[in-house]
Amino acid sequence: MSGADNFATGTERADRALLSRIESPADLRALSPEQAAEVARALRAEIVQRVSQSGGHLASSLGAVELITALHYTFDTPRDRLVLDVGHQGYAHKMLTGRRSGFERIGKEGGIGKFLRRGESSYDHFGAGHAGTSISAALGMAQAFSQRGERRIAIAMIGDGGMTAGMAFEALNHAGDLRQKNLVVVLNDNEMSISPNVGAMSSYLSRKLSAPLVRRVKGWAKEFLGGLPGDMLHWAQKAEESIKVFFSPGMLFEALGFKYVGPIQGHRMPVLLETFQNVKAMLENGDGPILVHALTAKGYGYEPAQRDPFRYHGVGKFDVESGKFPPSTPGPPKYQKVFAQTLIRMAKEDERIIGITAAMADGTSLDMFKRAFPKRFYDVGIAEQHAVTFAAGLAAEGMKPVAAIYSTFLQRAYDQVVHDVCVQNLDVTFAMDRAGLVGADGATHQGLYDLAYLRALPNIVVMSPKDENELQHMLKTALEYPGPAALRYPRGAGFGVALDAELRAIPLGEAELLRDGDDALIVAYGTRANDALHAAEELAAEGSSVAVLNARFAKPLDETRILRAARRVRAVLTVEEHAAAGGFGGALLELFARAGVSAAVRCLAIPDRLIEHGDPAAQHAELGLDSAGMARALRELL
Amino acid sequence: MSGADNFATGTERADRALLSRIESPADLRALSPEQAAEVARALRAEIVQRVSQSGGHLASSLGAVELITALHYTFDTPRDRLVLDVGHQGYAHKMLTGRRSGFERIGKEGGIGKFLRRGESSYDHFGAGHAGTSISAALGMAQAFSQRGERRIAIAMIGDGGMTAGMAFEALNHAGDLRQKNLVVVLNDNEMSISPNVGAMSSYLSRKLSAPLVRRVKGWAKEFLGGLPGDMLHWAQKAEESIKVFFSPGMLFEALGFKYVGPIQGHRMPVLLETFQNVKAMLENGDGPILVHALTAKGYGYEPAQRDPFRYHGVGKFDVESGKFPPSTPGPPKYQKVFAQTLIRMAKEDERIIGITAAMADGTSLDMFKRAFPKRFYDVGIAEQHAVTFAAGLAAEGMKPVAAIYSTFLQRAYDQVVHDVCVQNLDVTFAMDRAGLVGADGATHQGLYDLAYLRALPNIVVMSPKDENELQHMLKTALEYPGPAALRYPRGAGFGVALDAELRAIPLGEAELLRDGDDALIVAYGTRANDALHAAEELAAEGSSVAVLNARFAKPLDETRILRAARRVRAVLTVEEHAAAGGFGGALLELFARAGVSAAVRCLAIPDRLIEHGDPAAQHAELGLDSAGMARALRELL
Repeated sequence: MSGADNFATGTERADRALLSRIESPADLRALSPEQAAEVARALRAEIVQRVSQSGGHLASSLGAVELITALHYTFDTPRDRLVLDVGHQGYAHKMLTGRRSGFERIGKEGGIGKFLRRGESSYDHFGAGHAGTSISAALGMAQAFSQRGERRIAIAMIGDGGMTAGMAFEALNHAGDLRQKNLVVVLNDNEMSISPNVGAMSSYLSRKLSAPLVRRVKGWAKEFLGGLPGDMLHWAQKAEESIKVFFSPGMLFEALGFKYVGPIQGHRMPVLLETFQNVKAMLENGDGPILVHALTAKGYGYEPAQRDPFRYHGVGKFDVESGKFPPSTPGPPKYQKVFAQTLIRMAKEDERIIGITAAMADGTSLDMFKRAFPKRFYDVGIAEQHAVTFAAGLAAEGMKPVAAIYSTFLQRAYDQVVHDVCVQNLDVTFAMDRAGLVGADGATHQGLYDLAYLRALPNIVVMSPKDENELQHMLKTALEYPGPAALRYPRGAGFGVALDAELRAIPLGEAELLRDGDDALIVAYGTRANDALHAAEELAAEGSSVAVLNARFAKPLDETRILRAARRVRAVLTVEEHAAAGGFGGALLELFARAGVSAAVRCLAIPDRLIEHGDPAAQHAELGLDSAGMARALRELL
Repeated sequence: MSGADNFATGTERADRALLSRIESPADLRALSPEQAAEVARALRAEIVQRVSQSGGHLASSLGAVELITALHYTFDTPRDRLVLDVGHQGYAHKMLTGRRSGFERIGKEGGIGKFLRRGESSYDHFGAGHAGTSISAALGMAQAFSQRGERRIAIAMIGDGGMTAGMAFEALNHAGDLRQKNLVVVLNDNEMSISPNVGAMSSYLSRKLSAPLVRRVKGWAKEFLGGLPGDMLHWAQKAEESIKVFFSPGMLFEALGFKYVGPIQGHRMPVLLETFQNVKAMLENGDGPILVHALTAKGYGYEPAQRDPFRYHGVGKFDVESGKFPPSTPGPPKYQKVFAQTLIRMAKEDERIIGITAAMADGTSLDMFKRAFPKRFYDVGIAEQHAVTFAAGLAAEGMKPVAAIYSTFLQRAYDQVVHDVCVQNLDVTFAMDRAGLVGADGATHQGLYDLAYLRALPNIVVMSPKDENELQHMLKTALEYPGPAALRYPRGAGFGVALDAELRAIPLGEAELLRDGDDALIVAYGTRANDALHAAEELAAEGSSVAVLNARFAKPLDETRILRAARRVRAVLTVEEHAAAGGFGGALLELFARAGVSAAVRCLAIPDRLIEHGDPAAQHAELGLDSAGMARALRELL
C-alpha cells in the first residue's frame, strides 16, 4: 500500500480495489451492468484524484467517462475498434486499458502521453491530437474489415467541436455514400470545444433552430395544415410543436445517410448500455452507419470543473476538496500575453486590424483582444482552413487580419496559406504560436515544420523573435508589411526582459549582431539566441572569439550582415528549434552556396525523428540545442 | 475584320457585334432583360468557338453562362463582389469583363489564365484554382464591408463538387453563425465535379433521399397523421408526398442559418433574372445570408459536350460542327498511364492494395484501376484531407492504400500527412501526380513545394523517377516499404523509354550513377536527369569530365554514392523541378555540411517567384533548367 493510501477514505480505497481488478475491457465486460456503472463512478473519482496531482485534461475526460465505459462494456474491444477524436477525453479509456499507473508521469518524459498513441497501447488503434480525424480513420478501418469480409465494428467518438472541422464533414459524406454497415459515430455533444463552441452547426445541435428554418417550418406547417378539411386550428398549434421536435439534429445526419439515435443522456449508464446494445443489434440488422448523439457536460461529476469547464480543460495540480489551484508563482510574461497586448495596442490605432482564432482564444491569448475589440474578433471554430481563407478575403478588401494559429495547426491550412494568401500576395499576418518544442503535448503538437513548409512559398516574410520584447516589434513589422508575414514564437513564458515602451518596425530582413567575433559565428533563429550568447561567453573564456547573430528573419535573409560576419570566421554554427531538413540552417547553406562562402558550417536543429512529450529545457540539453551543446559543437568546429 | 470572319455565318457575325459592345458589366446592365438573354446565347456560341480553337475548360463554362450573365446583370459588380469557385466555369465572366481577345492565347505564356487571377482583372476579386475556397473568401469580403459600414454585397458561386470540400462546410457554418446579411452563395449544381460527383451530400442535393431519412419521414408522417381525428388515410398519402417535397436540400442550408432559394432552372435567363432580383430585395430586407440553388447541366447548349461533359471538361482543339477531336498523335505513354498499369499489375498479386482519389480519377488515370478493381477503388470527392486519413485508417488495419493526389492538392491534406500518416508511421503511398511545372494550369497548380513540405517529416520516404520506366520500379519500391512513401512525377508524356518487363524494388535510398566523371558532378532529382546527361555530353565535347547521378531519393539520401562522387570533383550541380528553398539542392547542402564536403555547389531549381502558365519546355529553358542551362552553370563553376 502506497503512502498516499494512508490518507485515503474508505470509498477511495474501495474504488481503487474495484479499478485494480480491471486490467483490460474484458474484465469490465465480466461485470454486471450495475457494477459497470460503479466502475464509471470510480473512474471519475480516480481521474479527479490523479489529475489533481499530475495535471492534465480534466473537464473533457470527466465528460466522457460513462460513454467510454459503456462502449468498452458493449463492444468487443480491441477486436472492435474504438477511435477517440483528439484524445482530450481519453483518460477513462487509458485507465480501462491497463494504464492507471502511468498517470503519475502523464505528459512527462517516459510517462504516458496526454493524447492517444498507437505505440502506447494495443487499444489505441489510431493516434489523435488534432481534431476531426476520427471519422475518417474509423471509416478506413471499417472498410478494411469489409474488404476482408471480417465482421468487426469501427467506432469513432467525436465531440461537437471536432464536428465543426471540415474533414469530419468530408468523412460523414463519404461514409453515407458507402453505406458503411459496420461504422458507428458517437457524437459527444457537450456544447463546447475547447473554447465555448461557435458556429451555426453548434446552434443546430442544441436545437436553437436558425431563423430561416423556423420560418420554413412554420410556413410549411401552415400551408400543409391549411389544406386540412374543417376548422383545425388547434391542430396547427400542435403540428408546429411536433414538427419542431422532428427537426432534431438527426435530420442532418440522416440526410447524409446515417441512422440517427438520440439525443440520449450521456451520463446515465443504464441509458447508455441499453442504447449501445440496441446499436449493436441495429448493426447486425444491416442498419449502419449509425450516429449516436449523446448529451454530456464537460467536467461532469466534479462540481468546480462542471461550473467552469473552460478553466478545468487543461490544468496543473489543484486541491480536490476546494477545487483551488496553488497561487501562480510570479514570473516573466508569456509570449502569448505580449502578443495580445501588442495587438490590442496597434488595433487601437488602426481600425483595419482584425483578430482571428480557430477555437484557441484562450491558448493564443486572443481572448484579451476579444474583450478589447469584440466586433473585430472572430472565432471560427476548429476550422483552420476557413480561418485562413476568411482572412484572405478580409485582406483582399483592405483589412489587416492576424490569424493566431499554433504552428502545428497551421498545417491544417497549408493549402490555403499557399493558394489563397501567398499566391495572391495578400496582407495576412500569421501568429504561429507554440512553435518549436511544446512540452507535455508531445509529438502531435510539436511546431517543428513551419519553416520548411513556409519558406519555399513566394511573397511571404518568415520571422522569429529572440525574446518577448522583440516579439512586439516583430508584430508591428508583420502588420506594416503589406504582404503575407508569419511570426513564430514559443509556448509559455518569455525571458522577463524589459519591454520597450515604443513599438518599432524592424527593417525587412534585418538581422542583429549580438556579439562580435573572429573565430566562429553562431547564427541563431528565434529564442535560442539567448543560449547562443552564453555559449559564446563560454568559448571566450577558453580564448575563442565567437560572434552571435540574431537572424530574426528566415525569409528574406539578411544576406549582407550574414555574409559579412561569416566571411570573417572559420566556422559557422546555426541553431534553431525546427526540424533539421529544410529549416533555417538549410536556408543559410543555400545562401552560402550561392555566395561561395567556404566556412565549415554545422547546423544544430531537431533531428529527424519524433520528439515525444517532455520538458523542453531537458530536451534542449538532450538534443544539444542548449548553450552547453552549442559550446560543444563550436569546440569541435574550431 | 479578321480573316476568320470571312467564314463566319450571319448569326456568328451578329453575335460578335453584340458581344463587342460589352466592354464591362455596366454595358450589359444597360441592356433590356431580353437583350441580356441574347448576350448569354452569344457568349455560349463564342465560348464553343474560342475553345474549339485554343482548348480550355469547356463543359463547366457552358454550364454557367446564364448564371454569370444574370449575376453581373443584377448586381453592381465590381462594387459588389462576385467570387467564382475554382474558376473552371469562368469564361463567360472573363468575356463580360473585357477579356474576349485574350482567349486566343488562354493558358499560354502571356495570354490570360485558365482560372481567375486578381492581377488579371479588377473583376477577379479573388483568385481561384483549388475548390471550395469561395465561400470563405466571400465571407471575409462581406465582413470587411460590414466592418466599414459599407452597403455592398459579396457573392460566392460554387459547384456541388466544391461543396463537398470540408472548408466549404466550415465557411457555411461560420456564415450562418455570423448571420451575414450581405452574403449570397450560389450553388451551381450540375451533379458533377470533374469526375461524376460522389458522396451522400450529392445524393441529397439531387433529392435521392437516403434510406434513413426516407424511413424517418415515413415514420413521422404516420405517427403525426395517425393522431388526426377520423379516417384520413387519403391524407396520409398526400402528406407523405408533401413532406418529401419539403425535405428539399433547403433544409440543410436553413439549419445552418441560410435562407434557401431554389432549386431553380439555371439556364433560363428570365427565371434567373427574376430570382436574383428577388434575392437583392431579400438582402435589403435583412434576409441574408441567402443560398440560391440553381440546377444546371455541364456542357449545356453544345450537344456533344452536354452528352459527354466528362470528355469535354478540359479539351484541346476540336471541330465545332462534328464535336470531333483531331486524332491524337501517337507518342510516349503518359506517366499517369504507366502508374495505373503498374498499380493494377501489383494489385493482382496483392489484395491489400487499394486505390484512392479525390475527384481526379481521370486525371490520375486511377479510372483504369477502378475498371480493374471496382471494389478496391475509392473516389472520396474533393476531400483530400479525408482521403489521406481514410488511407491512414486502412493502413492501420494492414491494407496498402495508394492515394493518388496531385502535388498541389496534397497541400490541402498536409496536416493529415504529418499527423495521421507520418507521426504514426503508417503504410500509405502518396502518388504525387503533376509534380513540377504543370503548363497551362498556371501558378495555382504548380507542384513546386512538395519536397520542402515532406522531407522535414519523420518516417517518410520521398522519391522521384528519372523516367516512366523507373516510375514503375519506384511504385513497387513504395508499396514494399512498410511506412509512408511519396512518389513525385510530372504531368503528361514520358520519354518513350522501354518499360522493363519485370518490376524491381529499388533498395531504399539507392542512387544511380548514370555517367562517371572527375571534374564536376550533376546530381539530378527526377526527370531533369535526362537533360543532365545531355549537358554532361556537351561538356565532354569541351574537354570536361562530368559525372551524372540520378538521385532517385530525396529522403533517405544515398549518402555513400553521393559523397563518393562529390569528393572526386571540384564542382557539384544539383537540378530539380521544385522551389529552390528547402528542395533537393538544400537536402544535398545539408548532407555536405554534415560530411564536410568542400566542393563548390550550385543548385538549379525554380526561383522564388510565381511561375505562371506556359509551356514547361520553354520554362525550363527560361529558368536554366534545360541541358543548355545546366551546361552554362557547369562552365561557370569549372
